[in-house]
Amino acid sequence: MKKVAIIMGSDSDFPVVSKAVKKLKEFEVPYEVHVMSAHRTPDAAIAFSAGAKANGFGVIIAAAGMAAHLAGVLAAKTILPVIGIPCKSAQLDGMDALLATVMMPTGIPVATVAVDGAANAAILAVEMLALSDETLARKLEDMKLEMEKGVAAKDEAMQAKVAEL
Amino acid sequence: MKKVAIIMGSDSDFPVVSKAVKKLKEFEVPYEVHVMSAHRTPDAAIAFSAGAKANGFGVIIAAAGMAAHLAGVLAAKTILPVIGIPCKSAQLDGMDALLATVMMPTGIPVATVAVDGAANAAILAVEMLALSDETLARKLEDMKLEMEKGVAAKDEAMQAKVAEL
Amino acid sequence: MKKVAIIMGSDSDFPVVSKAVKKLKEFEVPYEVHVMSAHRTPDAAIAFSAGAKANGFGVIIAAAGMAAHLAGVLAAKTILPVIGIPCKSAQLDGMDALLATVMMPTGIPVATVAVDGAANAAILAVEMLALSDETLARKLEDMKLEMEKGVAAKDEAMQAKVAEL
Amino acid sequence: MKKVAIIMGSDSDFPVVSKAVKKLKEFEVPYEVHVMSAHRTPDAAIAFSAGAKANGFGVIIAAAGMAAHLAGVLAAKTILPVIGIPCKSAQLDGMDALLATVMMPTGIPVATVAVDGAANAAILAVEMLALSDETLARKLEDMKLEMEKGVAAKDEAMQAKVAEL
Amino acid sequence: MKKVAIIMGSDSDFPVVSKAVKKLKEFEVPYEVHVMSAHRTPDAAIAFSAGAKANGFGVIIAAAGMAAHLAGVLAAKTILPVIGIPCKSAQLDGMDALLATVMMPTGIPVATVAVDGAANAAILAVEMLALSDETLARKLEDMKLEMEKGVAAKDEAMQAKVAEL
Amino acid sequence: MKKVAIIMGSDSDFPVVSKAVKKLKEFEVPYEVHVMSAHRTPDAAIAFSAGAKANGFGVIIAAAGMAAHLAGVLAAKTILPVIGIPCKSAQLDGMDALLATVMMPTGIPVATVAVDGAANAAILAVEMLALSDETLARKLEDMKLEMEKGVAAKDEAMQAKVAEL
Amino acid sequence: MKKVAIIMGSDSDFPVVSKAVKKLKEFEVPYEVHVMSAHRTPDAAIAFSAGAKANGFGVIIAAAGMAAHLAGVLAAKTILPVIGIPCKSAQLDGMDALLATVMMPTGIPVATVAVDGAANAAILAVEMLALSDETLARKLEDMKLEMEKGVAAKDEAMQAKVAEL
Amino acid sequence: MKKVAIIMGSDSDFPVVSKAVKKLKEFEVPYEVHVMSAHRTPDAAIAFSAGAKANGFGVIIAAAGMAAHLAGVLAAKTILPVIGIPCKSAQLDGMDALLATVMMPTGIPVATVAVDGAANAAILAVEMLALSDETLARKLEDMKLEMEKGVAAKDEAMQAKVAEL
Repeated sequence: MKKVAIIMGSDSDFPVVSKAVKKLKEFEVPYEVHVMSAHRTPDAAIAFSAGAKANGFGVIIAAAGMAAHLAGVLAAKTILPVIGIPCKSAQLDGMDALLATVMMPTGIPVATVAVDGAANAAILAVEMLALSDETLARKLEDMKLEMEKGVAAKDEAMQAKVAEL
Repeated sequence: MKKVAIIMGSDSDFPVVSKAVKKLKEFEVPYEVHVMSAHRTPDAAIAFSAGAKANGFGVIIAAAGMAAHLAGVLAAKTILPVIGIPCKSAQLDGMDALLATVMMPTGIPVATVAVDGAANAAILAVEMLALSDETLARKLEDMKLEMEKGVAAKDEAMQAKVAEL
Repeated sequence: MKKVAIIMGSDSDFPVVSKAVKKLKEFEVPYEVHVMSAHRTPDAAIAFSAGAKANGFGVIIAAAGMAAHLAGVLAAKTILPVIGIPCKSAQLDGMDALLATVMMPTGIPVATVAVDGAANAAILAVEMLALSDETLARKLEDMKLEMEKGVAAKDEAMQAKVAEL
Repeated sequence: MKKVAIIMGSDSDFPVVSKAVKKLKEFEVPYEVHVMSAHRTPDAAIAFSAGAKANGFGVIIAAAGMAAHLAGVLAAKTILPVIGIPCKSAQLDGMDALLATVMMPTGIPVATVAVDGAANAAILAVEMLALSDETLARKLEDMKLEMEKGVAAKDEAMQAKVAEL
Repeated sequence: MKKVAIIMGSDSDFPVVSKAVKKLKEFEVPYEVHVMSAHRTPDAAIAFSAGAKANGFGVIIAAAGMAAHLAGVLAAKTILPVIGIPCKSAQLDGMDALLATVMMPTGIPVATVAVDGAANAAILAVEMLALSDETLARKLEDMKLEMEKGVAAKDEAMQAKVAEL
Repeated sequence: MKKVAIIMGSDSDFPVVSKAVKKLKEFEVPYEVHVMSAHRTPDAAIAFSAGAKANGFGVIIAAAGMAAHLAGVLAAKTILPVIGIPCKSAQLDGMDALLATVMMPTGIPVATVAVDGAANAAILAVEMLALSDETLARKLEDMKLEMEKGVAAKDEAMQAKVAEL
Repeated sequence: MKKVAIIMGSDSDFPVVSKAVKKLKEFEVPYEVHVMSAHRTPDAAIAFSAGAKANGFGVIIAAAGMAAHLAGVLAAKTILPVIGIPCKSAQLDGMDALLATVMMPTGIPVATVAVDGAANAAILAVEMLALSDETLARKLEDMKLEMEKGVAAKDEAMQAKVAEL
Repeated sequence: MKKVAIIMGSDSDFPVVSKAVKKLKEFEVPYEVHVMSAHRTPDAAIAFSAGAKANGFGVIIAAAGMAAHLAGVLAAKTILPVIGIPCKSAQLDGMDALLATVMMPTGIPVATVAVDGAANAAILAVEMLALSDETLARKLEDMKLEMEKGVAAKDEAMQAKVAEL
């Protein structure tokens, strides 16, 4: 199976990014996690992206905050789909990272998820890999059923909470 | 080859959406285009999404403006990757559609591209399909080379423009 | 009397939503509270909404955060008035939920209240039911008088606070 | 049948507001239209609102731009449901009117629709009146069916447009 | 000397508003402080404003949060200058109150200060009264000199702080 | 009578500022109009402000766009009330000028009016001067009555417009 | 003298960028203008930046719109000061480019000017070069004097305009 | 070597500004730190700026929050490059200071860094001085190498963290 690369611009993004890692583990999808920066280690980031397809990767997930250039810079050097996670930072509430990630010019798309939406980035990667992997597809369908049951259970539990008001 | 579905919430989105259609044509990827609304034809939208995988689709692209729920509603009923195009409308400059498309809750990702970024939505869909199709992969690499040459040509042409100032 | 349905997209919205429940209790308006998600349990949400009028409901209140599609999705399947409460989440300060709730396209209105404005959602529902229920109307008038007295009492209490400065 | 009052803060809002009037005409709901300002004719506005219920009104729709106080000021003096239409003005893209209309404090809700969403304001008013009027309810259901057919027709027409690309 | 009225929409605004009271005390300007709401006690607010000039007031300061209509509603009923303090609330960071206070239509100005800028509201009121009161004018000049000295002292103290780095 | 100074940062602001001039003419308040820039002619701006009180001015109105520092810089050098008009420019819709004008630090208030709200700036200046000038006060009351009549006339005219729909 | 490099992400930015070129011409500062993209020609952009100092450049000006990564990507590979011009695009009013340019992480500054502020980017570059070039410094001082005279002339011309009102 | 001036508008900005001081210390660049306000001590600020070049300064860094006029006011009186640090304050998340700093009119650029981006302001100042100082240039190159190594080390350390998940 193709691997998923998870690249974060700074190790301070790990609390957010770890949710993506855990989700990939649940789906038993192989992955690699790296700290690489579009600005501090541009050569490493570019070399990684340029070689990603040849090195067995299928999808790249990039997480960065502020002027989040990482996903775009990686996307520039690969034809693999690149998923961007805009990370909230201490200022401007994540709006800076969201716009810097999603507003890509024609030719170089970045598949952007919600601010700090790391779990969804992983699920989106799995959906892409599942296009040619029916086992993964079934796991996604199971996850959807589990979510549905989970909400139904919460609906039931809610009745008790409401009764207490 | 798996088909790409392009769903727009209103036919007034066609000038934007047509760029996605043209791009898929260039890549010779089969597609269907539909007008379906999360709010006006919810049953049709849901039925389409629920059956999309069985009906030979690989990716769904959804374009909508304002409180853009279409991509999210389609994503709720499929495990196929769903790409969202937030469309600019007469008010609020597209920020409403962007936030309504990208800020999805955990479990139901929407791969969001730029406001009115229809061509990129198509390219992203092709990147996903190319994960198991080397011919498509090569076409993407060709596109990247063409873009590179195009910019180089514009750089050269720029020298004449600058000389005229 | 017609019932009010209060639907929340996630049980994490309960601290906000509980204010709506309490307000309905004060007005002795019958209600049901449910956890249902436009994205995780779309079938349940749609079935609830489609059957709401027949099942004795008069108004639906929907609370959701982020890309808040719940109110719109419910409104798509009913002719009952749907009131939307945009919930503030950890990112973007509730602006995402506000725009995703209020900017509905022509044909499918959502009566939107303030971010986290659950008490007002309940009062608005009561105002709607009071259109054909003079007892409720009188209770609303009493509430307005109570509010007026409350502010007058605070104005008086303020004089002591100011004297201490 | 109870009447709907449509109040606009300035006659320059009429191009937007006229859509609400037309929609009420379609539903054969009686209405009155007035120009009244929370700031320029506060006494008239307040007197109108205070007497609205006694004068046979069921719902008040208020349209205003910029620091849009009209809906809130009317809501302060009535227990009728008040629907607010935030109008886009030459500056700030309607965001000022949206926030000034929707962010009402506890006790005085305003049912806010989209920026310039006048048609939806009328439909919402009809939904409220339909709570005790089955003829209106049936008209709303017919409207929903018409919308559905309209989108289906546009979906079919779209096939020809796409073929031409 | 003419009095300054300080009106707050809710007693929860007192921590902010108290800074205005203290500043007026420093300038020995007579004042009254009231809790009055444009929405909960509209009659009291309007009566106060309509009578303010006759009752010896020269300036009205109004503090409110969210859809902050108070300053505008007071300004509608008086020709006295009205100063608006937009108060930050739990959502939307004060932007709602700022826009709802400052974006007044032609004919009814509100002199708006910064979000939570209560001390400045008081100073602005003193500047207005000082137009016909040279004693107050001299106090304002003294305040400016004190501020200047204060900054100079902080500049000197800063040298020690920097040396410690 | 004290004069009103109207200072604009650039003569391109004149179409907006001219509304303030006209309004002062209507009130027969003496005024001077100048083009002075906080950035291009800081010495002239500061000298003007420092001497304004001695030179017979009572109020300063400052209009500027983008990073609108003019009102703040003038306010720094005078104890006269300074009114700021944030001007909309080609980018960012006037939000830049609004925040740069209104968010003044403690000690140096700027009485901010709406984006491009030049007429209101003039009316606010008149309200300040009217604190010690009953003739002006009566003119303001007349203006309020005229506005009220104007809206009533528009309300009447509206009935014909509505009948035509 | 060291050269200034002006790099634009797309030749559609030329109408904005040409103002920077003209300004450099006025100052007789040598320059080169290129079209290079962080996303479409990342290798060319990086190679240019990495070699810029050795090739006789002193300052790099980068202009880009949307998710404007160009300035940041160039800054990653050089120790020359990089000036960023955020360009307004058809959506989101330039706020996307501004945040994507200015919010750089620690270690890699981009000296950001106003949205579409190309002339200022050139002046800022000249200010940097003037640190070791007294002739340039004198030209800057002349420019400042000219600006001052220009505003004074406009102030005089304004008197005639005002008289006509 | 030319000195760097670091001016802060208020000593409450020191926690942010101290990062700039430390960075200049690391580079062994001489500096002075001052508290000066565009509004409270305009004469001191202007005198400092007007004399800065003659007094041996090469670059001015200005840090201010809210309606941050300091950088612009300093830039008005010098031809030295002025770097602006917009400081986050208790309201509006730093967006006010960012726009008030960066949106300067033509002729008076301010080189703006990220909200609270004090370390980058210092590095940018060093880059400017390094244009004529090869020792500084080498230190900047060393810093870039150190950053690169730092990220590589964090990448390695990350592998252990991920293994623990």
